[in-house]
Amino acid sequence: MNIKVVSRILEANDRLAEDNRKIFRDSNVYVINLMSAPGAGKTTLLERTVSGLSGKKKIGVIEGDIATDSDAQRIAALGVPVVQINTGGACHLDANMIREALSGLPLKDMELLFIENVGNLVCPAEFDIGENEKVMILSVTEGDDKPLKYPLMFERASALVINKIDLLPFVDASVQKIREDSLRLNPGMRIFEASAKTGSGLQPWFEWLNQKGK
Amino acid sequence: MNIKVVSRILEANDRLAEDNRKIFRDSNVYVINLMSAPGAGKTTLLERTVSGLSGKKKIGVIEGDIATDSDAQRIAALGVPVVQINTGGACHLDANMIREALSGLPLKDMELLFIENVGNLVCPAEFDIGENEKVMILSVTEGDDKPLKYPLMFERASALVINKIDLLPFVDASVQKIREDSLRLNPGMRIFEASAKTGSGLQPWFEWLNQKGK
Repeated sequence: MNIKVVSRILEANDRLAEDNRKIFRDSNVYVINLMSAPGAGKTTLLERTVSGLSGKKKIGVIEGDIATDSDAQRIAALGVPVVQINTGGACHLDANMIREALSGLPLKDMELLFIENVGNLVCPAEFDIGENEKVMILSVTEGDDKPLKYPLMFERASALVINKIDLLPFVDASVQKIREDSLRLNPGMRIFEASAKTGSGLQPWFEWLNQKGK
Repeated sequence: MNIKVVSRILEANDRLAEDNRKIFRDSNVYVINLMSAPGAGKTTLLERTVSGLSGKKKIGVIEGDIATDSDAQRIAALGVPVVQINTGGACHLDANMIREALSGLPLKDMELLFIENVGNLVCPAEFDIGENEKVMILSVTEGDDKPLKYPLMFERASALVINKIDLLPFVDASVQKIREDSLRLNPGMRIFEASAKTGSGLQPWFEWLNQKGK
């Protein structure tokens, strides 16, 4: 009974996601759904990315949070169009929320749209929101057991940014194990190692993004 | 329509949670529902706690994860009764999962049961599993904006362990801001500052736990 209900919700979401996808395609906007646990560094990575792609890509951002607009304020300070979605409790963004947010964005003047999902390593991976690609961030402070413990997100993301590598000397996490377990779940996954805080390791990430939508 | 469905699921869960609560009461077992984002240090804190309360409290543990039994293995290595629940995708434990796990635990020989929830700062807070108290962990590596961005868990937890304080020199997080925002959401919250990894700051946590169920 519950399974039927969940399945109907996901079917309705998938139809709306396809509508979003058509809107994005018609506007020539390439969409990245950025996911991670709380505090892995999604917003800091976006701040760096806006600067790193400055003059190369016209960027827009949708920020998803349960509450507050603090992330949207950080992005708006960089002069990039941004809309904040507050889910009011929901643990992930869905296609309908994205659809409603689109009216606040100048899609025709954008090439790359980042959608920062709610900080959660589980639920966001289940919902198609019309993106071209799912990308995830894992902070080394979260430990190297996360790919095996939260497999769905690692299976569905086409790229993984292993973040906060500046903290590697102080934590017990093996980047090698994160890489191996991630690639076992998802052999085609592109993996970056970076520190969004210091900026180190971000050049390959910028180059990868710069090829998108071409 | 969806709201009705969710409300029925929560009602059914609440009834089962009350059944669990009666079982715990009849067995004189005090139950802590331990919640946090992925990688905040729940299992490491439990390892320290089992040692710190050794000879004082008879402890049991239920481990909740989407996949793997790695956390249960870490706890079992300490000689404490432990049951692993794998939710197979669900983003939180519910009362029915706990009920089924209880058959694997010697409740009559236990005084304190820790239930380590799925790593997630959102969904676990919504589900009563029959616990006496919800306790949460926030790692300073997650940043000091988390109380305002994930308010429900901070509102529902009676205690907060601010963990990984050994990493404070290397991250941009203010413990003072975490404390102030947490207490604004939940004025009665008991707050500890600790490093489960180094063991520093844990004595008040042990003393607080040692008073439970008396």
